[in-house]
Amino acid sequence: MISKSRISDIRKLHLKKFRDAQQLFLVEGRKCVEMLLQSDYIVEELFATESSVEANKQMLAKVPVTIATPSEMERLSTMSTSPDLLAVVRKKQESSPLDENAPVIVLDRIADPGNLGTILRTADWFGIFQVVCSHDCVDLYNPKTIQSTMGSFCHVDVRYLDLVDFLSEYGKSHRVLGTFLDGSSVYTFDYQPNDCIVIGSESHGIRPEIHHLITNKITIPRGTTPRPSAESLNAGVAAAIVMDHFVSKCTF
Amino acid sequence: MISKSRISDIRKLHLKKFRDAQQLFLVEGRKCVEMLLQSDYIVEELFATESSVEANKQMLAKVPVTIATPSEMERLSTMSTSPDLLAVVRKKQESSPLDENAPVIVLDRIADPGNLGTILRTADWFGIFQVVCSHDCVDLYNPKTIQSTMGSFCHVDVRYLDLVDFLSEYGKSHRVLGTFLDGSSVYTFDYQPNDCIVIGSESHGIRPEIHHLITNKITIPRGTTPRPSAESLNAGVAAAIVMDHFVSKCTF
Repeated sequence: MISKSRISDIRKLHLKKFRDAQQLFLVEGRKCVEMLLQSDYIVEELFATESSVEANKQMLAKVPVTIATPSEMERLSTMSTSPDLLAVVRKKQESSPLDENAPVIVLDRIADPGNLGTILRTADWFGIFQVVCSHDCVDLYNPKTIQSTMGSFCHVDVRYLDLVDFLSEYGKSHRVLGTFLDGSSVYTFDYQPNDCIVIGSESHGIRPEIHHLITNKITIPRGTTPRPSAESLNAGVAAAIVMDHFVSKCTF
Repeated sequence: MISKSRISDIRKLHLKKFRDAQQLFLVEGRKCVEMLLQSDYIVEELFATESSVEANKQMLAKVPVTIATPSEMERLSTMSTSPDLLAVVRKKQESSPLDENAPVIVLDRIADPGNLGTILRTADWFGIFQVVCSHDCVDLYNPKTIQSTMGSFCHVDVRYLDLVDFLSEYGKSHRVLGTFLDGSSVYTFDYQPNDCIVIGSESHGIRPEIHHLITNKITIPRGTTPRPSAESLNAGVAAAIVMDHFVSKCTF
């Protein structure tokens, strides 16, 4: 049985201020926990239901596990259907310096945790490992973000920076591409392996304060139809289409 | 003041069985309502807060509006932050026959309403107007689906069919492309304007019962990296990347 106070402590990690204070976060569900156990993240405690210990014998062979009943799991978890596995994990300390020969994806005010998670999963698929978030992006360690990365948070290096400061400096030696409605087509744009690519927020696009730091505007062309069509794309979709074109034309 | 029984009737539309029984659904928020009012959907009743009537004078000029207090709106709405505008809308009856010269996107068991909505929004952006869903896809009229279309549900024609029946018949005269991990690259595939493109579910891909009806397997290549990478892409992202390549190479 897990003590009430332990459950209460873990439930605090549903909230950013406690994740920040304690430098801990939650990883929920089999897929994410599987990727976690293959990574260099430090797991403080791993909770599993009895049936999931049985079902994941190999994966859990070398890991200490605390058995949780389904109802305890429900209280620990943020998910509407409670998971079989849930880990309390230590955040990583400072990131290593950026690899300036590889691409960087810059996210400006991405507010939806599902969008952030999806972008990290897509970056991971395409082998892009460096992501810079503005300070007002949603938290990487938000349980919904972690969940929608499907484990890719283990592979992609995410850092939160002031974008004006970062782009002013990084832009001295790198091109800064940004998605706008009136740029060069992403189909024909001449990408370079160390480009920095800025994706704007779901509702507001790229913030005006950094427009002057964008060296190249790029655009995802609409279909050619006389009918009315969508005004914009979802931020996760726009990021994916740009990354897809980028990796199809660059080796890094 | 809106009567208790009216509020209770509208709240029933949060659930699929009542939407099905009454042939009504909800459209919430300014963007979606704006697109709705430009469409040929029949609006049964439009609720607006007093401040939103003032803020959207032009848009609401010719529409009868029921004023709702913010707390009434909160009870009517499915959203965590209640919207300024909420419409009760009649579902459309039977769709018109498919345009066999235009592309069709087929969705197999898409379970997440956000993913379905995002796919419709992306299709709309690219000028693809025909979507066929398997019967076990999430409901088009789920409020979260409608919300994440950002109004594109007004432009895209969605029908629910048995995929074995549909593809057996439609496949006689059309190619049926499907996303797999071992197909031809989406970068170089030779698309035809009337291709039918099947996108599999988030967790299970394309169901085995229809594998034999796929005439062409296509694949989104991963990045070339020696590091571990994501096992799969989000369904909305995969659909977007395929549609993007399709429309960049086809006129329809």
